[in-house]
Amino acid sequence: MAPWLTDWRGRYRGQALAILSPSTTDEVAAVIKLAAKHRVAMVPQGGNSGMVAGATPDASGQSYLLSLRRLNSIEAIDQDVRLVRCGAGVILQNLHDAVSKHGLRFPLTLGGKGSATIGGLISTNAGGTQVLRHGTMRSLVAGIEAVLPDGSIYDGLTPLKKDNRGYDLKHLLIGAEGTLGIVTRATLHLVPALIERAVCWVAVGSPADAYQLLLAAQDECHGMLEGFEILPDAALAHVVKHIPGTRAPLESAAPWHVLIELAKDSADQEAPAQLAERFLATAMGKGLALDAAISANEAQAEAFWKIRDSIAEAERAEGPALQHDISVPVSDMARFIDTESPKIEATYPGTQVIAFGHLGDGNIHYHVKAPHGATAENWYRDFATRISADVYDRVVAYGGSISAEHGIGQAKIAEFARTSEPARLAALRAIKNALDPHGIMNPGKLVPLASAGLDA
Amino acid sequence: MAPWLTDWRGRYRGQALAILSPSTTDEVAAVIKLAAKHRVAMVPQGGNSGMVAGATPDASGQSYLLSLRRLNSIEAIDQDVRLVRCGAGVILQNLHDAVSKHGLRFPLTLGGKGSATIGGLISTNAGGTQVLRHGTMRSLVAGIEAVLPDGSIYDGLTPLKKDNRGYDLKHLLIGAEGTLGIVTRATLHLVPALIERAVCWVAVGSPADAYQLLLAAQDECHGMLEGFEILPDAALAHVVKHIPGTRAPLESAAPWHVLIELAKDSADQEAPAQLAERFLATAMGKGLALDAAISANEAQAEAFWKIRDSIAEAERAEGPALQHDISVPVSDMARFIDTESPKIEATYPGTQVIAFGHLGDGNIHYHVKAPHGATAENWYRDFATRISADVYDRVVAYGGSISAEHGIGQAKIAEFARTSEPARLAALRAIKNALDPHGIMNPGKLVPLASAGLDA
Ligand SMILES: Cc1cc2nc3c(=O)[nH]c(=O)nc-3n(C[C@H](O)[C@H](O)[C@H](O)COP(=O)(O)OP(=O)(O)OC[C@H]3O[C@@H](n4cnc5c(N)ncnc54)[C@H](O)[C@@H]3O)c2cc1C
Ligand SMILES: Cc1cc2nc3c(=O)[nH]c(=O)nc-3n(C[C@H](O)[C@H](O)[C@H](O)COP(=O)(O)OP(=O)(O)OC[C@H]3O[C@@H](n4cnc5c(N)ncnc54)[C@H](O)[C@@H]3O)c2cc1C
Repeated sequence: MAPWLTDWRGRYRGQALAILSPSTTDEVAAVIKLAAKHRVAMVPQGGNSGMVAGATPDASGQSYLLSLRRLNSIEAIDQDVRLVRCGAGVILQNLHDAVSKHGLRFPLTLGGKGSATIGGLISTNAGGTQVLRHGTMRSLVAGIEAVLPDGSIYDGLTPLKKDNRGYDLKHLLIGAEGTLGIVTRATLHLVPALIERAVCWVAVGSPADAYQLLLAAQDECHGMLEGFEILPDAALAHVVKHIPGTRAPLESAAPWHVLIELAKDSADQEAPAQLAERFLATAMGKGLALDAAISANEAQAEAFWKIRDSIAEAERAEGPALQHDISVPVSDMARFIDTESPKIEATYPGTQVIAFGHLGDGNIHYHVKAPHGATAENWYRDFATRISADVYDRVVAYGGSISAEHGIGQAKIAEFARTSEPARLAALRAIKNALDPHGIMNPGKLVPLASAGLDA
Repeated sequence: MAPWLTDWRGRYRGQALAILSPSTTDEVAAVIKLAAKHRVAMVPQGGNSGMVAGATPDASGQSYLLSLRRLNSIEAIDQDVRLVRCGAGVILQNLHDAVSKHGLRFPLTLGGKGSATIGGLISTNAGGTQVLRHGTMRSLVAGIEAVLPDGSIYDGLTPLKKDNRGYDLKHLLIGAEGTLGIVTRATLHLVPALIERAVCWVAVGSPADAYQLLLAAQDECHGMLEGFEILPDAALAHVVKHIPGTRAPLESAAPWHVLIELAKDSADQEAPAQLAERFLATAMGKGLALDAAISANEAQAEAFWKIRDSIAEAERAEGPALQHDISVPVSDMARFIDTESPKIEATYPGTQVIAFGHLGDGNIHYHVKAPHGATAENWYRDFATRISADVYDRVVAYGGSISAEHGIGQAKIAEFARTSEPARLAALRAIKNALDPHGIMNPGKLVPLASAGLDA
């Protein structure tokens, strides 16, 4: 059991009575009925690739790990209406492969795709780099089947475009992190396969310029803008320094960089590289872009993305850093970075803010690097709680979210309780207690219950 | 008070102690706090244009009507990110007018737009004729503010594209018909203003052909397909007979007709009429379209839409009919119409099914006309319950919804209770009781509570 009792990042470790591994919805229902009867806790787990230890049991050893990985069949692919129906245990990479054989694409992807399951992705409302065009999991789920905490089966698998029969249980289960029931199957939207893409590397002067560039791209690349990522020059420098085989895409230096992906998936669309060239020429004319390179082939496109995807790894090689996965309104992100980062750096001398990621979604990985020479252990002990609380307070002041992508799990539950307005917390608690009155579904995760001693 | 105590269709009449008409969120909160303290029922009302008597109080006279119409300020329009923030009492037509001055469009419209308010549209998750491209209200709400049943204020107004802090309260309030709280303000998505449109009238041989035409349109008119409506020849005949100034758009007879709208809202898109011509030529070549006309100007576009929009009125002139607002998966709608309509007509001799509407959304107005000569009163008394139950049973057998657009309110609550699987009903009841423990928010609507004697 050991590998399943620790979270992906290795920061939490739990105990469990056993792993249960049902392979049908009915088996899941039978297990949950028993759990409800005997009041034992169930910790649902898919690929165990989550970032907030949501699938890790607590240390009591009194709960069962409920692995959903055997619900792994891809049941039907409908090319006409571009839908796939599958089990919750299907691994994202396998779904990609299966639908691509039908000329289709499931347009959500992320670093953990070799492990993450559809049920886990739904339960954390996962995002990734294609959200700008296709949305998070929430927009991609057409129907859902779930076993509720009393063992009854909610059948919402049929993909209805319009259905106004009361509270939307599908949307309630998406992002619920296994605290309201078990997702057993889903019907998901697909899009046409990619025909061709162009990835652009653009040097920009500031986050504010990057935002103007984003608005221009949304206007002028309408329908083909698939990704828009930002990174500071320091992040690029770390990657080039630590990751073999990478190099800066442009000769000239610049304080910030933007990665833009334009994708063509319909025969009547223009060639992405041609559109990119026209768009970037205009942007350079307006001074929004300082310099730019467009991928000439897939290898170059991959090389640009590799830089973006290696930032976290390069940063680890560089030294300790605190990571925050935050969002504010898209139109406020440049102001947030420009205003708050200098304040953070001034308050904690020697630290450096590395803010990078999905500018197009108003979602940034806001990392605070320790001063040079600081040792991880000491610095985390002395600063982690203070700095993170400070970052989150600033995010909340912008009306933003302290968890844009990764969820709350157990890792963020205390900060969630601290920063949330009482109305939101009270509503979440009421819903949790109503649907899971015995508290058997993933206890201690997501919802800061009063009994956890977290509120006044 | 009289006009507000009866529903739009004049089928339900209630009583109330008084109308309360707060003009700020804080006033709403103060009212709800008092209501919670004294356990008095509140019936929220916007424009009172709903179709299921959701805003009509019961006959006891023990509740208050809570009118939200004074929350009618349009607070901010952001052209860059295409968002508007406004009060729940803003009337849809006024919102359309205000944003159009900024070169923008709120892409949801319906017959009741002169009365319906944003709060009512959100609370019923309204649809309309542009859902195919832009979605229902659910897809258009970027943020929401609400007063919860204890009088606390939920502030989710900030438009965050990504936010994974637990159960999505925005999606829970959308479509909740005022049973979980009062929507006080919202942030809504806008789209660019229309540059030009083409409306096509197409004669087709069957619903199955219409569906194939829809798939072709989705492929070939990518990004410009705004509406796709179907109607049987009988509906056209009724309109031409009863509605002055209308005439059949095509010379040739056909069993079914389709109305397609293509809209251009970006300078780089093709002229819609030109695209329509190419698309329809191909479709006629394949035998999917028997004949077609493309609007040559706005007057003609309006004339085509007028036929579509007059079907219900013409039908009333023709005689009594039972109306059902149903959905099944888009890909099953043709089969549903072709298979189930003859069975309905055979079971109730002399009746005629008129199935028309949003084929592109799998959402049809499924009307069953009384036999010639039947008087409304007698026929409704003898057949209404039986025929409607029969229609709904068939819909449920397809995994469909007995309320695609209009909600449940009080008009459909018994059929909703009868046709729902227990797991769904139990979850709705649990949520309702948890968030509104004193049952003060729009009691008797939407959620068939056990205490209403509707379940076993
Ligand atoms: C390298 C890497 C990169 C990543 N990049 C991104 C990114 O860019 N964007 C992003 O949003 N996320 C990212 N993630 C996180 C990603 O969202 C999660 O890994 C994924 O969603 C979890 O899927 P899983 O099957 O591993 O779920 P698990 O980790 O097993 O579980 C996650 C949560 O869901 C619950 N759960 C799992 N399955 C079910 C089910 N069937 N029913 C009910 N509850 C269930 C668990 O109890 C837990 O609370 C990344 C992860 C990795 C490892
Ligand atoms: C001619 C006509 C054509 C129509 N066509 C369509 C159509 O094509 N598609 C479609 O989907 N609908 C259609 N409708 C119905 C339409 O959805 C409703 O009219 C509209 O959504 C209701 O808005 P309202 O402000 O009038 O709400 P009301 O009728 O006042 O209330 C509707 C429900 O919402 C609740 N409510 C109202 N305001 C609030 C608030 N601020 N907070 C919480 N709860 C609230 C009420 O309690 C009630 O349950 C049509 C209606 C008419 C009259």
